[in-house]
Amino acid sequence: MSEDLQTLQRRLADFAAARDWEQYHTPKNLAAALSVEAAELVEIFQWLTPEQSAKIMTDPASAARVEDEVADVLAYLLQFCGVLGIDAAAALAAKIERNEERFPANRPSRHSPE
Amino acid sequence: MSEDLQTLQRRLADFAAARDWEQYHTPKNLAAALSVEAAELVEIFQWLTPEQSAKIMTDPASAARVEDEVADVLAYLLQFCGVLGIDAAAALAAKIERNEERFPANRPSRHSPE
Amino acid sequence: MSEDLQTLQRRLADFAAARDWEQYHTPKNLAAALSVEAAELVEIFQWLTPEQSAKIMTDPASAARVEDEVADVLAYLLQFCGVLGIDAAAALAAKIERNEERFPANRPSRHSPE
Amino acid sequence: MSEDLQTLQRRLADFAAARDWEQYHTPKNLAAALSVEAAELVEIFQWLTPEQSAKIMTDPASAARVEDEVADVLAYLLQFCGVLGIDAAAALAAKIERNEERFPANRPSRHSPE
Repeated sequence: MSEDLQTLQRRLADFAAARDWEQYHTPKNLAAALSVEAAELVEIFQWLTPEQSAKIMTDPASAARVEDEVADVLAYLLQFCGVLGIDAAAALAAKIERNEERFPANRPSRHSPE
Repeated sequence: MSEDLQTLQRRLADFAAARDWEQYHTPKNLAAALSVEAAELVEIFQWLTPEQSAKIMTDPASAARVEDEVADVLAYLLQFCGVLGIDAAAALAAKIERNEERFPANRPSRHSPE
Repeated sequence: MSEDLQTLQRRLADFAAARDWEQYHTPKNLAAALSVEAAELVEIFQWLTPEQSAKIMTDPASAARVEDEVADVLAYLLQFCGVLGIDAAAALAAKIERNEERFPANRPSRHSPE
Repeated sequence: MSEDLQTLQRRLADFAAARDWEQYHTPKNLAAALSVEAAELVEIFQWLTPEQSAKIMTDPASAARVEDEVADVLAYLLQFCGVLGIDAAAALAAKIERNEERFPANRPSRHSPE
């Protein structure tokens, strides 16, 4: 994993340890927290048209809210990976390689990444 | 953002462009897809005790499934940030600084990050 | 709650008891399972345009999938309410009354139910 | 569907029509809103132990919050079913019958409802 993600992951771990929050950070709880934050991101867009959603960052208040939820999602993802010893960036690199075989670029395919 | 995340984000963007999938990748749709992948991570843990959840990586099949869902969550997070021009690592660094002020380490506090 | 919902709730409770699944059915686990099923419903629509989503029931395979996920969401909602002694229909009736005061019909308002 | 659910579904439809909210109520948006409300239910439990989660209704403030989220989940489920013409109770009854065949009570089985 990159230096930056490692640094962030370490800061999050230190933050939790300093507040005695590690007891709450089971993989099960962190996965749930990650899904809750992802839903808060969805909530921002739930009543918007596709076109409105593409312009979300032009409104400063909405932009700040989106960035805040992105931060929360990444925070729980890194904490989840931290307690389980997973290298998220390496997992994604491996997945991209698998997908390049599953979905050849020169053949038509419906969108169905997962 | 770190070189590695930037590289992954670029590979995901190229992958989508080569398959003409960009039309599907509105921020609204990518946020929904992110939440679906986060739920697939939750699903792995939904009937496990906290103790069982902590040992999930000792079973190779479960470990592979967890890493696969982590990859999917990070993939959609990076694609979401890519279409909106958000630097996820910078957003998280800023959030950690805000949280260090909101939740001082030397005062007792219930866990309630969001 | 209506007779029908009560009957369904009882059948679900008997089904779980006969398979010794009650041990898994903590409110926390059932809430997670409910959210996973809701995400599976979202997944059906994630790449569709609003217009395509409105026609989902015209495709028999998609219609069956939607009905299946609706059944799962209702099943976990009823089981969640069953273990906690909540009358979901009464809770909703009370909520509608509160919302009728919060969102008067004769005044313009942005959509923001929650 | 039972009279009660039908009545609630009708009240929700009238409520939306009176506020000109029908334009937002595509199946895609309602599925997303349902998943957001389910996540808000998960959020209440995310840091609790299984034992704490079983006692959630003994705290009046938590009990009110749980009932409120249950109402929201049921509201969006009924609105989703309303726009698509789905009878949720009938879909669940059919699913229970299928599950009774898939998971015979007299044979041991891991929990895996979906």
